[in-house]
Amino acid sequence: MIRSLYFLPDKPIRKDIPPKEISKLARDRRGVLWVDFSNEPPETCLPILQSLGFHPLAIDDALLETHVPKLDDWGSYLYVVLNYMDVSTNGDIWETHVDELDIFLGVNYIITHHDEPIQAIDQTWNSCDRDPRTLQEGADHLLYKITDYLVTEYMPLVERIDDSIDQIEDQVFDRPSPRTLEKLFALKRVLLAMRRILLPQREVLNKLARDDYQVIDRKDRIFFRDIYDHLVRLHDLNESLRDLVGGALDTYLSVVNNRMNEVMKTLTLITTLFMPLAFVTGFFGMNFFEPVGLLTEWTSNGVFYLTLATILLLPIGMYIWMRHRTWV
Amino acid sequence: MIRSLYFLPDKPIRKDIPPKEISKLARDRRGVLWVDFSNEPPETCLPILQSLGFHPLAIDDALLETHVPKLDDWGSYLYVVLNYMDVSTNGDIWETHVDELDIFLGVNYIITHHDEPIQAIDQTWNSCDRDPRTLQEGADHLLYKITDYLVTEYMPLVERIDDSIDQIEDQVFDRPSPRTLEKLFALKRVLLAMRRILLPQREVLNKLARDDYQVIDRKDRIFFRDIYDHLVRLHDLNESLRDLVGGALDTYLSVVNNRMNEVMKTLTLITTLFMPLAFVTGFFGMNFFEPVGLLTEWTSNGVFYLTLATILLLPIGMYIWMRHRTWV
Amino acid sequence: MIRSLYFLPDKPIRKDIPPKEISKLARDRRGVLWVDFSNEPPETCLPILQSLGFHPLAIDDALLETHVPKLDDWGSYLYVVLNYMDVSTNGDIWETHVDELDIFLGVNYIITHHDEPIQAIDQTWNSCDRDPRTLQEGADHLLYKITDYLVTEYMPLVERIDDSIDQIEDQVFDRPSPRTLEKLFALKRVLLAMRRILLPQREVLNKLARDDYQVIDRKDRIFFRDIYDHLVRLHDLNESLRDLVGGALDTYLSVVNNRMNEVMKTLTLITTLFMPLAFVTGFFGMNFFEPVGLLTEWTSNGVFYLTLATILLLPIGMYIWMRHRTWV
Amino acid sequence: MIRSLYFLPDKPIRKDIPPKEISKLARDRRGVLWVDFSNEPPETCLPILQSLGFHPLAIDDALLETHVPKLDDWGSYLYVVLNYMDVSTNGDIWETHVDELDIFLGVNYIITHHDEPIQAIDQTWNSCDRDPRTLQEGADHLLYKITDYLVTEYMPLVERIDDSIDQIEDQVFDRPSPRTLEKLFALKRVLLAMRRILLPQREVLNKLARDDYQVIDRKDRIFFRDIYDHLVRLHDLNESLRDLVGGALDTYLSVVNNRMNEVMKTLTLITTLFMPLAFVTGFFGMNFFEPVGLLTEWTSNGVFYLTLATILLLPIGMYIWMRHRTWV
Amino acid sequence: MIRSLYFLPDKPIRKDIPPKEISKLARDRRGVLWVDFSNEPPETCLPILQSLGFHPLAIDDALLETHVPKLDDWGSYLYVVLNYMDVSTNGDIWETHVDELDIFLGVNYIITHHDEPIQAIDQTWNSCDRDPRTLQEGADHLLYKITDYLVTEYMPLVERIDDSIDQIEDQVFDRPSPRTLEKLFALKRVLLAMRRILLPQREVLNKLARDDYQVIDRKDRIFFRDIYDHLVRLHDLNESLRDLVGGALDTYLSVVNNRMNEVMKTLTLITTLFMPLAFVTGFFGMNFFEPVGLLTEWTSNGVFYLTLATILLLPIGMYIWMRHRTWV
Repeated sequence: MIRSLYFLPDKPIRKDIPPKEISKLARDRRGVLWVDFSNEPPETCLPILQSLGFHPLAIDDALLETHVPKLDDWGSYLYVVLNYMDVSTNGDIWETHVDELDIFLGVNYIITHHDEPIQAIDQTWNSCDRDPRTLQEGADHLLYKITDYLVTEYMPLVERIDDSIDQIEDQVFDRPSPRTLEKLFALKRVLLAMRRILLPQREVLNKLARDDYQVIDRKDRIFFRDIYDHLVRLHDLNESLRDLVGGALDTYLSVVNNRMNEVMKTLTLITTLFMPLAFVTGFFGMNFFEPVGLLTEWTSNGVFYLTLATILLLPIGMYIWMRHRTWV
Repeated sequence: MIRSLYFLPDKPIRKDIPPKEISKLARDRRGVLWVDFSNEPPETCLPILQSLGFHPLAIDDALLETHVPKLDDWGSYLYVVLNYMDVSTNGDIWETHVDELDIFLGVNYIITHHDEPIQAIDQTWNSCDRDPRTLQEGADHLLYKITDYLVTEYMPLVERIDDSIDQIEDQVFDRPSPRTLEKLFALKRVLLAMRRILLPQREVLNKLARDDYQVIDRKDRIFFRDIYDHLVRLHDLNESLRDLVGGALDTYLSVVNNRMNEVMKTLTLITTLFMPLAFVTGFFGMNFFEPVGLLTEWTSNGVFYLTLATILLLPIGMYIWMRHRTWV
Repeated sequence: MIRSLYFLPDKPIRKDIPPKEISKLARDRRGVLWVDFSNEPPETCLPILQSLGFHPLAIDDALLETHVPKLDDWGSYLYVVLNYMDVSTNGDIWETHVDELDIFLGVNYIITHHDEPIQAIDQTWNSCDRDPRTLQEGADHLLYKITDYLVTEYMPLVERIDDSIDQIEDQVFDRPSPRTLEKLFALKRVLLAMRRILLPQREVLNKLARDDYQVIDRKDRIFFRDIYDHLVRLHDLNESLRDLVGGALDTYLSVVNNRMNEVMKTLTLITTLFMPLAFVTGFFGMNFFEPVGLLTEWTSNGVFYLTLATILLLPIGMYIWMRHRTWV
Repeated sequence: MIRSLYFLPDKPIRKDIPPKEISKLARDRRGVLWVDFSNEPPETCLPILQSLGFHPLAIDDALLETHVPKLDDWGSYLYVVLNYMDVSTNGDIWETHVDELDIFLGVNYIITHHDEPIQAIDQTWNSCDRDPRTLQEGADHLLYKITDYLVTEYMPLVERIDDSIDQIEDQVFDRPSPRTLEKLFALKRVLLAMRRILLPQREVLNKLARDDYQVIDRKDRIFFRDIYDHLVRLHDLNESLRDLVGGALDTYLSVVNNRMNEVMKTLTLITTLFMPLAFVTGFFGMNFFEPVGLLTEWTSNGVFYLTLATILLLPIGMYIWMRHRTWV
Repeated sequence: MIRSLYFLPDKPIRKDIPPKEISKLARDRRGVLWVDFSNEPPETCLPILQSLGFHPLAIDDALLETHVPKLDDWGSYLYVVLNYMDVSTNGDIWETHVDELDIFLGVNYIITHHDEPIQAIDQTWNSCDRDPRTLQEGADHLLYKITDYLVTEYMPLVERIDDSIDQIEDQVFDRPSPRTLEKLFALKRVLLAMRRILLPQREVLNKLARDDYQVIDRKDRIFFRDIYDHLVRLHDLNESLRDLVGGALDTYLSVVNNRMNEVMKTLTLITTLFMPLAFVTGFFGMNFFEPVGLLTEWTSNGVFYLTLATILLLPIGMYIWMRHRTWV
């Protein structure tokens, strides 16, 4: 889908500009033009991007290739790649999907290109639609709006992850299961994927906030600086969450290990208590004794009561001995 | 709660200045003004901050958003974010709560904004109240005072954590339990949270001590340098404590592992000693022998005494063999 | 094998130039010369390289020694070392082989030297053969072409590795075996080897894209910049894959540990249930009782049914006790 | 204890200068003054330090606070904090104690302040006492002397630690015990504490060797450079020792794990050999057979010898089967 | 042993120059002088080094102290410390010994000092001896020669280590033993020691290749650059080998863990199969039944055959149940 907005001061907003007119309007410094390609095949995007005079390499980057967030300064326009993250939950296992948003920013136009619908784009689009003054502040301000919405979306995600970790931490101490482990590893992967996006994105915003570009008004830099600070904080939160997940993993392993210990102790306790008893009973079950054996005195009542005493006292002695070794 | 202090040389200190007068006093370079917003809703703070001419982004940062410690230089004023840490103990498990202190520092005014009561703010406030000369040294000196109190508060906390680790270390060798583990993980999290605050706070102080700001007297930089040195030391202590906790965790795991080993050895010892004996007694319990069996010579007295000898010597032999393999 | 291509504007392409003529043609700035040494012994390469006036150290580097990717600027020519990776699968275990491509780049000539046939070289060669205009753009553009093909080859490899990890991850949860582990370690080694090539290669491309060299047209730098961006993305993908492999290894160990736990629990369960029973049966198997024993009341029917009840109820009690300790 | 030395060319050395005279002598550029405060309460140090015109913050740092090694340049004097490490052995467990040495260095005076007696101070003091020419070379040379002695003390310590690690490494393979572990963790802590001192101390020396200070003669910088090189080497040795301790810990865990394996194998071997035998003997101990049972043919001599053969051959078969699974 | 070589153009090489003449020859810029101290006591080296006018600190460094590789620029001469590594194999356990080579390099002389014989020194010496033209190229070229030989020696060592790792990797999967572990830890230590030498040595060469020194001809820098590239590659190989050793260690632990699992499964299998059987046989061995017991119907033939069926079917059922839990 190709959609476009064109703003000229004191004129009504024009929509759905025919492709042929786009390059002409982009060159007219009085207006502000936004063209958005959403899930459009390269064949239809290519002639428009070429008519705007972008470098073939930049067009290739936008239409064909996948990149980590970056910013290329081509003088009269910037080529910016941003990433956004989609999180879905399969059962209670988190899964992430990372998509790319390509932006060409000129002095008075912005071209956005993406394969999946992006909420941040739609929100900005609608706010432009409702209030033309949003466009009035220039193309670089549109870039700020889009980036701001994009970054703001991470916040609720971070909070959901936080809640999820809290839940899992409780499970870890109460009822650790392989499922808990699977969930933790999935969360770890989500946080790693997020970190991989946040770090280069932060660098892009840092450049926008610090460096001197033809197409960005010096006064607007502080807005990018503000988003940069948000990304710094998001990165910091991400680090904290990763620490929490790491801690939960360690706790899980320790708790499982402790339970294993408990199990082994029980096994050893039972074995230690009953094996000597089994020997005693086996001993007096041998055929050397009664009925026609010669060792009748070994099976007299006195010996029996002695044996009974042994059977009662032996486990008690064993238990005391184990206590002494402090592991019961 | 909004409270304010205004100092003019040779005049008594004024308190609770009406909001409307604040911006006028802030512009008068002869006096020193301090306005403190404590747990005040954004609606009441906003008009005052706007009347002082702060940038909307800075006001947003202060009233609505959470940030890691940072310092923004807006020319005629600085916007500083500091964090402070509250530690509570739930039973003997440590828990932390991090809050934010926003500061606007102009040449002759300081605006502080926070959601929870902060001891460092109250201490500075009271010392200003008692002795107006504290205000006389200027707004930047007030920032120094507040920061100094804030940083000083970490010291007793660090000492309490140190004591706590000492206690746990003793427990680890004597009576390791899952509870010990829980305490160690909680301490680890407290130290990580502290590190996360100390590092950017240190950077803020480093900037205050090194960089040139309109609103900070060059002569006052050495005071910030002093706090910076404290933060360096606190960070160093934090690293040491984290090493200690890490070491205690390793020790815990090793000690638990060693106990597990002991348990397994006991199990194997008991099994190795009694299983062969059980076989011997079982053998002579078979019905092949007495009373009407044909193998009466197998149950003669001689064989019995031989069996008895076997039963006595077998475990001794087993024990020697195990000693030889060096694991008893 | 030595092969060569020579292009002069408006003339047909010359091939297989006699070695003696090479140095003369290399000095003629009007044409473009490409000489490719493929698995040629040093003896035949040496005189040609010497006739072109390369420094003995650079020739040594190219013919005798192995290097990590690097770029040496010798003023009138560049000496570039690139690596390429061959992956073969032995059964389902991955194996890598790293080879070296040495390139001498002058203003109007490019000399390539390698021991194994390289697809990227052959592809560029064929495209030059088909379309002489490829040569027309100069020797530095040839370097771009070769590097581009070289880097493009990694993409399908990365995708194959990704698929391979997906397969293994499924195995890990379903049926972990030492074979799975072997595969994971092999993948880890492949990814490490790839990272070791990508990082210095990225640096070489960064230099080509940023620095000023006599033999590289300033306008062509953006092409190397484009490859640099690809390498950045490849490195990022490599990091992601390494995280996945690391996660799979952790998961494997946890899953194996969990199974071990299950096994131990079963062992303890069986032992706990049957050992006390064995004692009971052993007790009433002793010769103190019947047939001529004096303790006939111990073997009366009442006692038998009591014993029977014990045998039935004891395991149930044991099981409830174990449930209570929450590890069954 | 306060002690002082004052050197004027061609005059005898003066000792124990009265506190009131100190500030006057410190200002006289012809002589060299050294005042040493050893375990002196702040109340007595304070007036002297104030009379010398030091900044209140620097005095606070010296008298009240603890710092990591650092160097503050106050123009006409340097404030230097150095740390020194005391190692004591409690039984064969190493323990460290870190103390602080505060130094004020002026053009012609040096003030040292410490709470515990320091060997390096005493050595320098004695050498000044014996040979006044040591003082003649200036106050900065005294700082060099003290630092040199301080750093030299680490060398025998490093060697003792090295020997200690050697001993423990032998123990690890021969007779690993929890005590070995405790020793290793103690050594690890000593090395970490040493590293924590060495790193900032190295930075202080680096500054003394590189930067331009009013109170340090440019020609004397190479002496500080020499100490800096020593600290580089000490840090390197420390890293090596930490690697050795880390390796010993890994070895310990592996050796213990191996022993555990041996124990488990023995347990399994014994169980595997005797459990089937116990079943066989139990089977023929059932009351179905003799004396009045109907199955007399089951207890005939032939069956007995068959059973005997089974009892002999079964363990052998079991053993061969286990060998085949390669874990005996 | 002190030996010396002196080269003057158009004159025969002089050897074994008397110590007194050394300083005179060193000052004569027409010739090239090389003095080599091999395992010479400090007393004999000291006067010669002093006569050459070296700084006392540099002489101390050379004669008395041990250093990591470093380069000190003393203006008219360089003081260079290089390390070389000796590897011996004690049985099949690798051991390393690191020695120091001190070099003073002037414009027309080079002084080498070492405690152990060094192959690289002897090789350079012999090549000078054979062909005086080697000396003709100047003292800095001699330094290049020595360093080149020194670095070249690492290559066969690296290959031997590589072979050794290959062998151990095979052992790890086939027959892991504590001995394998010991070998791996020894290799790890060798590689760590090598890395510790290579890194600062690389820095020394980097300085020689980049910085401007009075005593090194600018044209000779590319030779040091060449050695620097070798060291980069050696460091890279070292990293690869360390990864391989790390991987082999992980594999070892996993393989041992897997075997442990196998052992535990066998134990549990045997216990699970035979314990219930032992109970059954014990039950019917009780004295409640035959010969005079009242429960004769419990020992009738029908019950016997039922018991026999139980004894045959119980293990089969157990086995199926365990299969179902997927761990057999």
